[in-house]
Amino acid sequence: MTTLLVIGTGLIGGSLAMAARQSGRYSQVHAINRSAATNERVLALGVADTAGLYSDLPDRVATLKANDIVVAAVPVRAYQQVFSLLKDDLPKGVVVTDVGSAKAVVMDAARQVWGELPESFVPGHPIAGSEKSGVEAVNPALFQQRRCILTPGDSASSEAIHVVTELWETVGSEVDIMDPLHHDEVLGATSHLPHVLAYAIVDALYTLEQKSEIFRYAAGGFRDFTRIAESDPVMWRDIFLSNREAILSQLDNFESHLSDLRSAINNADSSELEIILERSQGARKLFSDIHNKR
Amino acid sequence: MTTLLVIGTGLIGGSLAMAARQSGRYSQVHAINRSAATNERVLALGVADTAGLYSDLPDRVATLKANDIVVAAVPVRAYQQVFSLLKDDLPKGVVVTDVGSAKAVVMDAARQVWGELPESFVPGHPIAGSEKSGVEAVNPALFQQRRCILTPGDSASSEAIHVVTELWETVGSEVDIMDPLHHDEVLGATSHLPHVLAYAIVDALYTLEQKSEIFRYAAGGFRDFTRIAESDPVMWRDIFLSNREAILSQLDNFESHLSDLRSAINNADSSELEIILERSQGARKLFSDIHNKR
Repeated sequence: MTTLLVIGTGLIGGSLAMAARQSGRYSQVHAINRSAATNERVLALGVADTAGLYSDLPDRVATLKANDIVVAAVPVRAYQQVFSLLKDDLPKGVVVTDVGSAKAVVMDAARQVWGELPESFVPGHPIAGSEKSGVEAVNPALFQQRRCILTPGDSASSEAIHVVTELWETVGSEVDIMDPLHHDEVLGATSHLPHVLAYAIVDALYTLEQKSEIFRYAAGGFRDFTRIAESDPVMWRDIFLSNREAILSQLDNFESHLSDLRSAINNADSSELEIILERSQGARKLFSDIHNKR
Repeated sequence: MTTLLVIGTGLIGGSLAMAARQSGRYSQVHAINRSAATNERVLALGVADTAGLYSDLPDRVATLKANDIVVAAVPVRAYQQVFSLLKDDLPKGVVVTDVGSAKAVVMDAARQVWGELPESFVPGHPIAGSEKSGVEAVNPALFQQRRCILTPGDSASSEAIHVVTELWETVGSEVDIMDPLHHDEVLGATSHLPHVLAYAIVDALYTLEQKSEIFRYAAGGFRDFTRIAESDPVMWRDIFLSNREAILSQLDNFESHLSDLRSAINNADSSELEIILERSQGARKLFSDIHNKR
C-alpha cells in the first residue's frame, strides 16, 4: 500500500487526506502545515495519521518510495515555494500532484523549480469546494460525485497519471484529462467569473450608506452572493492573479451581455427583456440535464 | 372572523392563502385564478377553501364585508387590470393589499384606477420567495421568520394597516412600515440588482460555444447563479421594468465597483485585490450579525 503526504490540510487538502485515510487504501496519511495549532486539530479531527511542520518536510519526504503520493494543497501562488522545498529530498518515482484552481501558472511554477516538468508530476484540480475554509471545514464526502480535472500535459508518465487518478476515484470523484490552458478558460468562466461578480456586488452594497438596512432586507438573491464572497480572500486573490487573462476575457463577454440587458431595461424593451430572461431558463434546463445525468 | 380572497395563488399568493387557512384565523379563504387547471390544484393541495375564475371575481367580491381582505398577488404590471376588475364591486371597508416587488408602480396603478389611493388600500411586499413558481411550489412556511414591508403612504387608514399587519403576523412575518420610494431603492439593491447580474452571467455563459462543457464543470459559484436565474421570466421582466430607475442606479454603482476589481486584476495589484476581497468578509459578517440576531 502507498503512503500519502498532504501539504496544507485546509478544506481541500484536509478533506482529501481524511477521505483517503477512511478508505483504508493508503497505509499512512501524513499532514504538513505551517502551524502547530492546525496540526493539533488535524490529529484531533482524524484528518491524518501524523502531522508535522514545514521544517519536518525534508525528513518526511525522504522516507517516501516510488508511487507514494505528495499532494500540495496551498494557495495558487504558494506552489513554487512548496515545490522548491520538495525538490532536493524527493525520492525517484514519488508522484507529486496539486489542487490549484489555475493550472498554467502551477505548471510554470514547477518548470521554474525543476527546469522542466518532471514525469512524476500530475497537475490536478478537484471541482469541489465550499465558501468555508480551513481544517475545521474538512469534509471527507466533499469529492463524492464530483469531477476532478487532471492536466498532465505531455510530460507526466502514464504510471503517475494512474496513481493520481486512483486517488481521486478512491475519494469518489470522476477524473477527466484536459489541456491546461483549456482548463483555465473553462474554470475562468464557471468559477472565477462568478466569484469576481459576487465580490463586486457585495462590495458595491457594503459601501452604500444604508448598508445595514440593505442587508436586513436581503432575501434569496443577495444572500447567495454574500455566501460566495465569504470564500477565503487570500486564496481568491491568488486565483484572480493566476488566471488573469482568461478572467478578463470572460469579464469582457459578461459585460457585453450585461450591457444588452441594461439597454433592454433602460429602453423599457419588454420583448427583448423577455427573450433574454427566457434564454436563462434554457440554460438552467441544460444545467439540470447535465448534472442529473450523472 | 374575516374572509380572505387571494387573486393569483402562485408561489406567494398561494403560500399566503394556505398559511392563513391553516392558521384557523380566517373563516374562509377564496382563490381566484386565470385557469381552471390551476384551481383544481388549489383545491387538491388545500391551498384555499374555494377557487374561482376571474369571471367569478365580481360576485365573489360583492359578498365581502368591512375588514375582509383582498390580496392581489400577480406580476407587477398586472395590478392595474386587477384593480380595475375590483373597483366597481368592492364593498366599503374591504381592505385591499398586494405583494408587488416594486411599490411606486403598484401605487400609481391604484391611483390610475381609483383617482386617488383609497384609505382601504395597504401596499405590501413580503421579503420571501424562491426560484420556483406556480401553485405546485406553494409552501405555507414560506413567510415564517421573514419580513414583510408595508408602504401605506399617507392615505391608508390605521385600521386597514392593522388588518394587513395582522395577516402577515399570522403567517409568521415581522412587519415594517416604509416609504414606497425608499422600499424601491432598497429592494433595487438587495434583490433586483442580483437578479439582473444572475441573468446576465447565465446568458453570457450559455451563449459561449463550449456551453455544454462549461456547464459540466460548474461547481458552487455558477450553480447559485443559474438557480437565481431560474425564477419566473415574466415576473422578473415586470419587476425590471417597474423599478427601472432604482435598478439602473444600482447598476451604475455595481459597475463602478466591478471596474475597480477588474483594474486590480488587470494591473496584478495584489494589495488592492486583497483589500477588496477582505472587505467582502466584513460584509458577510454584517449580514450574519443582522440575520442571526433575529
